[in-house]
Amino acid sequence: MIKGKPIIIGVIGAGKCSKKLAEQAHLIGATIASHNAILVCGGLGGIMEAAAQGAKENGGITMGILPGNTKDSANAYIDIAIPTGIGEARNAVIVNTADVLIAMHGKYGTITEIAFALKSGKPVISPFEWTAFPEIETIPDPEEAVKTAIDRASYGR
Amino acid sequence: MIKGKPIIIGVIGAGKCSKKLAEQAHLIGATIASHNAILVCGGLGGIMEAAAQGAKENGGITMGILPGNTKDSANAYIDIAIPTGIGEARNAVIVNTADVLIAMHGKYGTITEIAFALKSGKPVISPFEWTAFPEIETIPDPEEAVKTAIDRASYGR
Amino acid sequence: MIKGKPIIIGVIGAGKCSKKLAEQAHLIGATIASHNAILVCGGLGGIMEAAAQGAKENGGITMGILPGNTKDSANAYIDIAIPTGIGEARNAVIVNTADVLIAMHGKYGTITEIAFALKSGKPVISPFEWTAFPEIETIPDPEEAVKTAIDRASYGR
Amino acid sequence: MIKGKPIIIGVIGAGKCSKKLAEQAHLIGATIASHNAILVCGGLGGIMEAAAQGAKENGGITMGILPGNTKDSANAYIDIAIPTGIGEARNAVIVNTADVLIAMHGKYGTITEIAFALKSGKPVISPFEWTAFPEIETIPDPEEAVKTAIDRASYGR
Repeated sequence: MIKGKPIIIGVIGAGKCSKKLAEQAHLIGATIASHNAILVCGGLGGIMEAAAQGAKENGGITMGILPGNTKDSANAYIDIAIPTGIGEARNAVIVNTADVLIAMHGKYGTITEIAFALKSGKPVISPFEWTAFPEIETIPDPEEAVKTAIDRASYGR
Repeated sequence: MIKGKPIIIGVIGAGKCSKKLAEQAHLIGATIASHNAILVCGGLGGIMEAAAQGAKENGGITMGILPGNTKDSANAYIDIAIPTGIGEARNAVIVNTADVLIAMHGKYGTITEIAFALKSGKPVISPFEWTAFPEIETIPDPEEAVKTAIDRASYGR
Repeated sequence: MIKGKPIIIGVIGAGKCSKKLAEQAHLIGATIASHNAILVCGGLGGIMEAAAQGAKENGGITMGILPGNTKDSANAYIDIAIPTGIGEARNAVIVNTADVLIAMHGKYGTITEIAFALKSGKPVISPFEWTAFPEIETIPDPEEAVKTAIDRASYGR
Repeated sequence: MIKGKPIIIGVIGAGKCSKKLAEQAHLIGATIASHNAILVCGGLGGIMEAAAQGAKENGGITMGILPGNTKDSANAYIDIAIPTGIGEARNAVIVNTADVLIAMHGKYGTITEIAFALKSGKPVISPFEWTAFPEIETIPDPEEAVKTAIDRASYGR
């Protein structure tokens, strides 16, 4: 059972990543779970998988908004797979579903997600600096980043 | 926390409905929750709201796959709102997300969902007869319908 | 150059069809072109290809609203391919783009298109009877069907 | 009638723009038409409208891939309106439909289009420098930009 309206945090980033980035994403996922927030991501590998694993291993709920129309491509740590069947356009659905986004390392796909988020006025937080997007709040420490994300998402509730 | 891979049951039907149909949808939602399955629906009123209320009041988890790009239109019993922003085309996403569908009374929107489900080979169960879709399994009793839905979704797991 | 606002006629039907149905679809496409209307379809094979061929061979303009995200799957008679990348959900885009629809033989995919059309109040014409959809206007003769489609689309312009 | 496979050039940019930018977009649209290429855009105002006007006034064919599910929002210079009904996600459809893109001034929406284009390997040309996207080919002169776009789109045909 889910009590009240849970905060949903989107973790966005590339489908492949270094071990170091995966560790960071894992810690972010774990921290999301420890705050009883729900993690939403693109459901595939790399950053998405590491973050989902971190959340799942810490008792959290994980959602994967998939590009394809079946659940096959979801990583092993996704509780609820949503096969949109709309391909890359699903990036907009991830943004719409999240209350706040944490942007990890990524390239074009992640950029579309950041741009969709900023267009719709959703806060975006990142451990890294994104020179192209000064609107992103840079918070290097993963646990601090999650805490801030929850603060931003809670604002006005 | 969600253990294992939960069965996800889609309840589809019109955004407005009679009191009698709402009671049936409520019972279906309640039965879904009592079997620890997750309910997914279109997230709006009528059948969708009654089923979600039934599930939510019985400790279940409810998901609403919305046509718009914000959560505003979700009924009060949706735990996890997914604002697809893709309008009527979101009917395909509901079908992709569900393991099995229970079709209540509805018109064109419900028909698109049934057709998408049958096209992708997902089982569809209904308390009512649909002469246009002989593939639908008719099970008048709501609780029996849910039990059968879970059987069909469990097949091959 | 396209003068004024052209009438856009959607031809919907299965991706595989009998030779007889293909001939009918070809005649429908040819008649659409001879009336200077634009043909829109799903861009793939069967009915879609036969209708596009009929239109293209008679100097018409043909559009294919494709499920995939590249133009590879378009049949050879599509002038303008629109790779939506949204899979089956593209059926709703075909309906939105057409002013009127002509439904040929088809199964679940065609049914979603008919239901989307009727939901949005667009006229649907067919050479065949669809017992599940009494709203469809049955006109067995292909050339008459196209003329009626143009009449319905012109209404209120 | 459309002969052969026409080159389709996407013009992307904000829904509001300065008079100077509108003049540039108009010249780009006019040049696209004078080369017998088809213009595709998001179908709304600003850059999109100015470019479509330029193309239309010079005998070109214009397409507008709209976010909504009706044609009402299309600007007056769109020959073929495609109401996708998928909201902002339609930006991916513009990219899929175009063989090459010319990016005018714009913000988040335009950024999603550039990122989708670069992700799918489509060439992007702009009169302006985009520091965040060094892959974009900067060609200040509008007529030269269109000529280069046609060159890039013709490559490998």
